[in-house]
Amino acid sequence: MSLPFDAFVSSRCLVTGGLGFIGSNTATALTRAGATVTVIDALLPRHGGDRANLAGTDAEVIVADIGDADAVTEAVATADFIFNIAGQVSHTDSMTDPVTDFTVNAVSQLHFLEIVRSVNPHVPLVYTSTRQVYGRTEYLPVDEAHPIAPIDVNGVSKYAAERLHLIYAAAHGLQASAMRVTNVYGPRQCLDAAHHGFLPLFLRLALDGEAIRVFGDGSQLRDCLHVDDVVRALALAVCTPKAVGHVFNLGTAPMTLREIAETISEVAGGAGIRMVAWPSDRAVIDVGSYHADWSAAKRAFGWKPTIGFRQGISTTIAEHRRAAVTP
Amino acid sequence: MSLPFDAFVSSRCLVTGGLGFIGSNTATALTRAGATVTVIDALLPRHGGDRANLAGTDAEVIVADIGDADAVTEAVATADFIFNIAGQVSHTDSMTDPVTDFTVNAVSQLHFLEIVRSVNPHVPLVYTSTRQVYGRTEYLPVDEAHPIAPIDVNGVSKYAAERLHLIYAAAHGLQASAMRVTNVYGPRQCLDAAHHGFLPLFLRLALDGEAIRVFGDGSQLRDCLHVDDVVRALALAVCTPKAVGHVFNLGTAPMTLREIAETISEVAGGAGIRMVAWPSDRAVIDVGSYHADWSAAKRAFGWKPTIGFRQGISTTIAEHRRAAVTP
Repeated sequence: MSLPFDAFVSSRCLVTGGLGFIGSNTATALTRAGATVTVIDALLPRHGGDRANLAGTDAEVIVADIGDADAVTEAVATADFIFNIAGQVSHTDSMTDPVTDFTVNAVSQLHFLEIVRSVNPHVPLVYTSTRQVYGRTEYLPVDEAHPIAPIDVNGVSKYAAERLHLIYAAAHGLQASAMRVTNVYGPRQCLDAAHHGFLPLFLRLALDGEAIRVFGDGSQLRDCLHVDDVVRALALAVCTPKAVGHVFNLGTAPMTLREIAETISEVAGGAGIRMVAWPSDRAVIDVGSYHADWSAAKRAFGWKPTIGFRQGISTTIAEHRRAAVTP
Repeated sequence: MSLPFDAFVSSRCLVTGGLGFIGSNTATALTRAGATVTVIDALLPRHGGDRANLAGTDAEVIVADIGDADAVTEAVATADFIFNIAGQVSHTDSMTDPVTDFTVNAVSQLHFLEIVRSVNPHVPLVYTSTRQVYGRTEYLPVDEAHPIAPIDVNGVSKYAAERLHLIYAAAHGLQASAMRVTNVYGPRQCLDAAHHGFLPLFLRLALDGEAIRVFGDGSQLRDCLHVDDVVRALALAVCTPKAVGHVFNLGTAPMTLREIAETISEVAGGAGIRMVAWPSDRAVIDVGSYHADWSAAKRAFGWKPTIGFRQGISTTIAEHRRAAVTP
């Protein structure tokens, strides 16, 4: 994917979490757009970071916690743009190891904001939040005014970090905006991590020729966003001054979990789908149907999703198959 | 104040933040109600904790962070009721030292919840949250469905802890409820801490015979709650199973800041009030008018405020004057 504008040519871009799924796609796209890219990634186990994700780019990689001032201050100070994507993404892990989730997603983010405030307070900065902050949906589609009611520790830690970004924008003049991302798929997503949500799990099963297990009756709605559409949103937002201090949903057209599973299985030539009962540890943190009203992002910075699910899944599956045979 | 019921006779009550303002009033009331009280307090500078607040009671005091498992686990394990009141309360301090605020109010609370979950998961527990989680009010009176939009770090850290309590109730069966407290006054409040909000500041000035400075035009609404009414709410809530997993506003009849200042000055025989412009660091984190709809607390556990402002301020001023001459 190439970015649709030239704002990043010869710029210095800092990407936190840049060895992870969304982060490495962002770093790669920025490199292709002519930016000099520095990545900070703690490479924490189970968080999805992998040096192979940036193989073939010339991005500089700093392996550190984003809140480690000694390690990251220079990179923050010299950045023209910051894409703050680092985070623990697993809802289930946040319940079994809440302290790690909260430390990584909230405490380290607060330290990072303090570093930005201290050494580069006017740098344009975009933060990736999550739809999980809404908890169980009260209406659909979910706009940004929907009540905040996270139902797992990950939702709390991400909301805290999101809100801290907006407070630092209002109180300290940071040029920060935040994007609430829904389920994302695409190249470089770690498919071996069942705790990263249903999409990588569905893809793994389909690629392995196994039936995709769908919890419950499969009628729950989700909008699945290709990572290239997310990267484009982050790039557009970080260049849009009027986005500063605001949070925006990113999303696309909704599908049922059953339709999503069937599409993946069909495209992959897999073994179809299989309906199973909800495991109890998942049911307690399940949010029901979700799809986003993303019209505010369209109004503020002209973003809309461009990659349909069947198309996006086709290229994603082809990419995963190519990566599997390329050492 | 004596509690209106005998649920605590011969019980073991744990009060976190028990050397602070609300905490020490709670611990004292529980002692009078026949409970054996253990207090945990980190005695952090500027947070309001003072050993003198429990002089004359036989409460056991553990000086420790509530998240310090070595120090607090036994007290948690043996408690029949937990009043979780510990916290940093200054909005201004949360902006100048955000890491301390977030660590104390959110991280330590998460560690504390993990300890409770581990050693005493079925103990009735009530947590004191704050109206600050609502941020700038969109309508009055503010009910619990009002949007969450904290505008300072303290609001974020308190919201995170509040929400973690409710998530631990839903996911792990903790018997936790949370109370969103508004401006509180009464005996044992530290009046020498301007960062603890306008009420102690107003009282200090009036007691010192100085004019009370009121920011802006003084038309902002606040509901000022006597600490005895707060303690009664905590005691009622912690005995009410149907409160578990829910959050409740506590509040009373609204007054303007000007009326509040005038009443305090009159009762104290002070030097009147003086209107001054908003300092810029306060304006950026000011929430506008606030008063609570506390009808949910009334429905759930029969609470209502019983102490009118003039009456409560009169006894509070008398108590502060008595304390000032009693070593």
